[in-house]
Amino acid sequence: MIEAAVFGYGTVGSGTVEVIMDNNDVISKRIGDKINVKAILDLRDFPGDKYESRVVHDVNVIIDDPEISIICETMGGVGAAYKFTKMALEAGKSVCTSNKELVALHGPELIELAKEHNCSYKFEASVGGGIPIIRPLENALTADVILSVCGIVNGTTNYMLTKMDKEGAEFDDVLKEAQANGYAEADPTADIEGHDARRKIAILASIVFGKTINSEDIPTEGITKISARDMKYAKQLSRKIKLLARYESSDNKRYAMVAPFLLTNEDPLYSVDDVFNAIKVTGNMLGEAMFYGRGAGKLATASAVVGDVVECAKNLGKHIPCDWSSEVVTLTDMESSERKFFVRVGAETASEAKELFPIEEEVKVGFYDEFSFVTKVMTEKAFKEAKEKMGAGMINYIRME
Amino acid sequence: MIEAAVFGYGTVGSGTVEVIMDNNDVISKRIGDKINVKAILDLRDFPGDKYESRVVHDVNVIIDDPEISIICETMGGVGAAYKFTKMALEAGKSVCTSNKELVALHGPELIELAKEHNCSYKFEASVGGGIPIIRPLENALTADVILSVCGIVNGTTNYMLTKMDKEGAEFDDVLKEAQANGYAEADPTADIEGHDARRKIAILASIVFGKTINSEDIPTEGITKISARDMKYAKQLSRKIKLLARYESSDNKRYAMVAPFLLTNEDPLYSVDDVFNAIKVTGNMLGEAMFYGRGAGKLATASAVVGDVVECAKNLGKHIPCDWSSEVVTLTDMESSERKFFVRVGAETASEAKELFPIEEEVKVGFYDEFSFVTKVMTEKAFKEAKEKMGAGMINYIRME
Repeated sequence: MIEAAVFGYGTVGSGTVEVIMDNNDVISKRIGDKINVKAILDLRDFPGDKYESRVVHDVNVIIDDPEISIICETMGGVGAAYKFTKMALEAGKSVCTSNKELVALHGPELIELAKEHNCSYKFEASVGGGIPIIRPLENALTADVILSVCGIVNGTTNYMLTKMDKEGAEFDDVLKEAQANGYAEADPTADIEGHDARRKIAILASIVFGKTINSEDIPTEGITKISARDMKYAKQLSRKIKLLARYESSDNKRYAMVAPFLLTNEDPLYSVDDVFNAIKVTGNMLGEAMFYGRGAGKLATASAVVGDVVECAKNLGKHIPCDWSSEVVTLTDMESSERKFFVRVGAETASEAKELFPIEEEVKVGFYDEFSFVTKVMTEKAFKEAKEKMGAGMINYIRME
Repeated sequence: MIEAAVFGYGTVGSGTVEVIMDNNDVISKRIGDKINVKAILDLRDFPGDKYESRVVHDVNVIIDDPEISIICETMGGVGAAYKFTKMALEAGKSVCTSNKELVALHGPELIELAKEHNCSYKFEASVGGGIPIIRPLENALTADVILSVCGIVNGTTNYMLTKMDKEGAEFDDVLKEAQANGYAEADPTADIEGHDARRKIAILASIVFGKTINSEDIPTEGITKISARDMKYAKQLSRKIKLLARYESSDNKRYAMVAPFLLTNEDPLYSVDDVFNAIKVTGNMLGEAMFYGRGAGKLATASAVVGDVVECAKNLGKHIPCDWSSEVVTLTDMESSERKFFVRVGAETASEAKELFPIEEEVKVGFYDEFSFVTKVMTEKAFKEAKEKMGAGMINYIRME
């Protein structure tokens, strides 16, 4: 019998218990041993809950229980979750987590701690919810030099952008609706400002590179400036606006970025709508592969946590290696990166814009108070300088993929 | 130093050598040991080829070489490839293959043989080219009861259907063009009749179920009856025609089938065009995930072969388990399966069709010599009976997804 415990009986935590208990037969068969959730750590009580009797309030009850060998950390945050994860690993218990914030901040340290104590720290659920992406990067795409990882990794913002695209609604209205139906949190900052996506691409880039890419070093723009007008322009350009989290490496340059991009329908990410996530990986031999699925949600995320539990259960007493060192990689300054930009300026500043930007194509959808265009390929540096000179004349801009 | 050998220096074989040699640094780093291709087995000589001196004509040179521990079988076919694979496994050498025909026919036997000789038989490249799909099914989606696997797994037919859709061309013309530019073989039967797709879904279904689904037991219809007119109707219905290979399991029923289907744009497979492949996996907890990429091609397929080589190299002297027994599963008769059908009959038989089929909707695109409609949901059995009664009056039909 393999005894597991769950830290945090919230959405993903209760999903994790449900997956282990409801799919117990098939999971036990795959492990080759029966598995059980012996204890659930939470500050709250859950009177009437099916697993009420397994809830404990003291982490030490779990840490000191020699029968418990695997922990599912679904608390979130970097306070207690960090402390309890370290305690568990030091006690030789493997930890499987959905906590991207903790993984992005302390991943290599916790992997190293697991190695020292012959157990494992696994985090498939931290990126892309139920989509297998960490494991394919580590174990499947091993013949390739990975040139880029680029994805839609935040379900809330993708849901909002899809709504805005389909309904022509404004950002604030869609945000309110998303909050009302549970797709966005009361404080939506982490999602709409791109911080969540930034943490996830930091994790993916670190796994690809084998060293640490600090989340805070990644230039990040959210979707708060995207308006119903932008959606009209996107349609006119036969494109969709998507919040991309990207990492590219070439010629010793390593770029990472989170920002809204205008995608053509040739891009497989173009069709990824609503709360779905997808991550595109380009290898020098493989070409392009894409992994698609539910990027969030109770059971999808729990499915990924429990997938890690199965792997840990098959490797009890052993450390499952993960090539991610704590050495920090300095990203290349985005300024040398090149692309086209879609730009909207006030109609009264059109002549100024024409002088400042290399314009490839004007874009007209019937808003006579503004002048809008697509630039020729230019560097981020040149764009930034032109943008600064435009000052308040610039209404908005979106990068072109 | 890990010494590998390649059986068959054709497209995938030469790609495999290229991947191992050109990406040698990154691959050796991942293995933790230097890797080399010591010998290449082929009946032909390759004068002027970079690796000319490594070509041998006698399989025993490789089998008897104790330094060679991993074989890439990229010969294809079930004759010599089968014999040589057995010889290699019996000599304790792991075999990584792209040969779907051999895997579909002798997979469990070769896995068992590998187990007996403490080596491995790996076949990620046999389905979906470079797309990781076997490994995610075995190692990632382990928390779920897999309810269905459904994919576009044949690049040739998807390329042809995409051409027909975009250009309004007829089947025969597109086939000739595909043959001319190397996307279809001189004898295209295996692709256009669905045999290749059938082998691949047999492999995937067997991996999911852990027992053997015989490729020959899977009802299979190819794309030879699809015409430019069908494409017009598909557009009218806002759908695309795709050759799907599918496996579904529910309530002790196990269906498998290969046939053209009409997909809505809500289906993530709808956007999978040209030579791309994608496989959709539905789990009872995960929901829907999809794996997308190049389903064929020299380097993409070779990338998957070499991904297996890396895993074998990390597990030398050990058998990597694969849960696929030789016990044959009897599939449920498709007759009880239910869906809508799109049907075209001669205009003169319209009244007969109206009596025989439960018609939900007539579909008109301006061909007055025929009567076309979508049926209500009906069983395959009821459809087959009505179809037989229609006789020569039936022009074509396509299943609706």
